[in-house]
Amino acid sequence: METGEAIRTRRSVHEYADEELTRDEILSIFEDVRWSPSSYNLQPWEFVVVDDEEGQAELREAAYGQEHVTDAAAVAVAFGNLDRGAHAERVFRDQAEKGYRAEDRAEKLIEEMQDEPFEQNERWVIQSCTIAATTLMYAAWDRGVASCPMGGWDADSVCETLDVPETWHPVLMLTLGYPDEESDEWERERKMRRSPDEFVSFRDGGEE
Amino acid sequence: METGEAIRTRRSVHEYADEELTRDEILSIFEDVRWSPSSYNLQPWEFVVVDDEEGQAELREAAYGQEHVTDAAAVAVAFGNLDRGAHAERVFRDQAEKGYRAEDRAEKLIEEMQDEPFEQNERWVIQSCTIAATTLMYAAWDRGVASCPMGGWDADSVCETLDVPETWHPVLMLTLGYPDEESDEWERERKMRRSPDEFVSFRDGGEE
Repeated sequence: METGEAIRTRRSVHEYADEELTRDEILSIFEDVRWSPSSYNLQPWEFVVVDDEEGQAELREAAYGQEHVTDAAAVAVAFGNLDRGAHAERVFRDQAEKGYRAEDRAEKLIEEMQDEPFEQNERWVIQSCTIAATTLMYAAWDRGVASCPMGGWDADSVCETLDVPETWHPVLMLTLGYPDEESDEWERERKMRRSPDEFVSFRDGGEE
Repeated sequence: METGEAIRTRRSVHEYADEELTRDEILSIFEDVRWSPSSYNLQPWEFVVVDDEEGQAELREAAYGQEHVTDAAAVAVAFGNLDRGAHAERVFRDQAEKGYRAEDRAEKLIEEMQDEPFEQNERWVIQSCTIAATTLMYAAWDRGVASCPMGGWDADSVCETLDVPETWHPVLMLTLGYPDEESDEWERERKMRRSPDEFVSFRDGGEE
């Protein structure tokens, strides 16, 4: 699908078709997600995919009963690894090898990352994982797989259900699946969007 | 450009060609950005685009001297409107009209949004604006326009330079422009990315 079409036709879906997503299909979406940008290329994203009935039922409870959590073929939860040092060695040595930065600077950065206090990294992982999750929405839709990014869920319950390490900060939950194209939701006119005239301004106030 | 190609070939660019971006080109990118999702469809994004020499020089200072801020054709700064009530009336009445929710529920939500304390909305605007900024990167690259999302800059200086309302929370800065395809940066091998094997797990631990 053309990029512009993917962007303009993607819509958040709550009514899914009764059709499975194979794990190969899911992993193929993540083959695109991996190319998302992150500061220093540290890639602090960790995704847990839940595609079994019991797991989805538990997540639905954590998401205050939202039905699409169990109706979807799968649910992906994006966590941000608060430990900046986790992949620092590979990432910075790769950059030194490929000429992006000097070797001594790379070694210094590896050290610095180990010292970063976790609590300062929350905003950074929220942004990085949200970028990756947005890539996921477009990569999925490019394959005909709809998604719904969800904000309303209890983070503690989700971490407990998925039993993730303490350094993983929960960022975003997305339901995934083929849309039910016969649903009322699918038939409805798209929701309004503000136009660029309304949300873009130029610093000097000038016009084209 | 195909969606997969846009996602997999986009890279963060610091070396820009000496080629302008017209305001029409910039606004056409935002015609795609507008379709980004946000919770309740509240669209809390406000972008300020800086494409004049003086403005870019000021932003470069706020960004600790990073050269691509002045070398780029333009810089876009994404702000999140902390006032959930700002567009609530239009957004919820639209949803009631189109059958997304009952009218009385829409009216109740309009009221509720007015009462949301601004300081609780920071994370929400960070996520919404990061989604919109990610859409911007792909929509731009689809038109051959490269970008670089930037985390390192002084938020207070940027708000002062751009003289934005106090309710606008600064989220992300992006440089924009055609890449210099003869630069060393462009020639370099892409930076490594972790593979889905490493950053995706399934809840039940099972394999395909």
